[in-house]
Amino acid sequence: MIRRPGRRPAGSNTREAIVAAAGRLFAEAGYDATTLRAVARAAEVDPALVYHYFGDKPALFVATFHLPVDPRMVKLLSTTGEGPHGERVVERFLAQWETGPDAPGTAFRTVVQAMASSDDIARSFREFLTERVWGQPEGVDADEWLRRRALVSSQLVGVAWARYILRLEPLASASRAQVAQWVGPVIDRYRSGEQEPG
Amino acid sequence: MIRRPGRRPAGSNTREAIVAAAGRLFAEAGYDATTLRAVARAAEVDPALVYHYFGDKPALFVATFHLPVDPRMVKLLSTTGEGPHGERVVERFLAQWETGPDAPGTAFRTVVQAMASSDDIARSFREFLTERVWGQPEGVDADEWLRRRALVSSQLVGVAWARYILRLEPLASASRAQVAQWVGPVIDRYRSGEQEPG
Repeated sequence: MIRRPGRRPAGSNTREAIVAAAGRLFAEAGYDATTLRAVARAAEVDPALVYHYFGDKPALFVATFHLPVDPRMVKLLSTTGEGPHGERVVERFLAQWETGPDAPGTAFRTVVQAMASSDDIARSFREFLTERVWGQPEGVDADEWLRRRALVSSQLVGVAWARYILRLEPLASASRAQVAQWVGPVIDRYRSGEQEPG
Repeated sequence: MIRRPGRRPAGSNTREAIVAAAGRLFAEAGYDATTLRAVARAAEVDPALVYHYFGDKPALFVATFHLPVDPRMVKLLSTTGEGPHGERVVERFLAQWETGPDAPGTAFRTVVQAMASSDDIARSFREFLTERVWGQPEGVDADEWLRRRALVSSQLVGVAWARYILRLEPLASASRAQVAQWVGPVIDRYRSGEQEPG
């Protein structure tokens, strides 16, 4: 059978083709400039199929880079003034990477490899984090919030790095609750505690 | 000219051959089990040349993975009870990755790529950190010290990650002194402050 040139029909390889095209476009153009329509064109599929499989751009980005983003964690990160909840942030952040069929931390490894190998992919992640994961609460100074969220991000990624990649004990084997108890107060300090001004 | 089989003569490619062989052996056998003699054998050079070029195993490891390890930072990490010096730890940690001919963070990227791509290389790094970078001060409980140094490591690697790979502002552009002011107190807390027991 000769395959007609042009659009790829719906089928088992369609989702993979969309993800592959999305990976290229997010890396080349960044998160902001990549549209679902452009992904569809690059994957040679009908745009309706991209919406059908993924719904929206954040969901496509998450699927492309195997990101497990827990909406409850996102909500915790984007609110202030509800008392210390650093422990819950840490516990949910770790749970994201440890649930699912793969070995704990597998998705984290995928993500860090992608970021370390390409400035363009790192930029795409930065835009995604900035726009989708971190909302800005009302009544908080914009610069201060930028600084706070960068510091929280640095500690969270560092804990995941020590636990999944470097496998430094006791962080590698401790329960999520235990790690959250150790690191949570630092998250609270960065999120809402007193700080030297920038 | 026909090259005689056997040992490689000293010369411009010798150092590179040693580093390449060391990279393979550290990844395969880990830091502990790799000897300079085995590296010499794998590189087909006289063992005296390995000592000549690198001096000892830590120096070979540092050269193999482009690690800039500042002895003063190592000393700061391995002492307690001299008052808070988290800011100095952070400033020296960052300075290590930002001096030299390459763009700031280039060596950090090399290291994280190597670790993320291979469990064996990650193990080698862990052994190196444990044995060479982090000494254990006298009079400190061993488990507690393990936990403290893992937490300090997590925050340091996270800051480097946010600054060099993710390039999250303001961490990416702030001066080292400024970043040290933000993060230093957390390092002090992890190093010597009060903590929930593990």
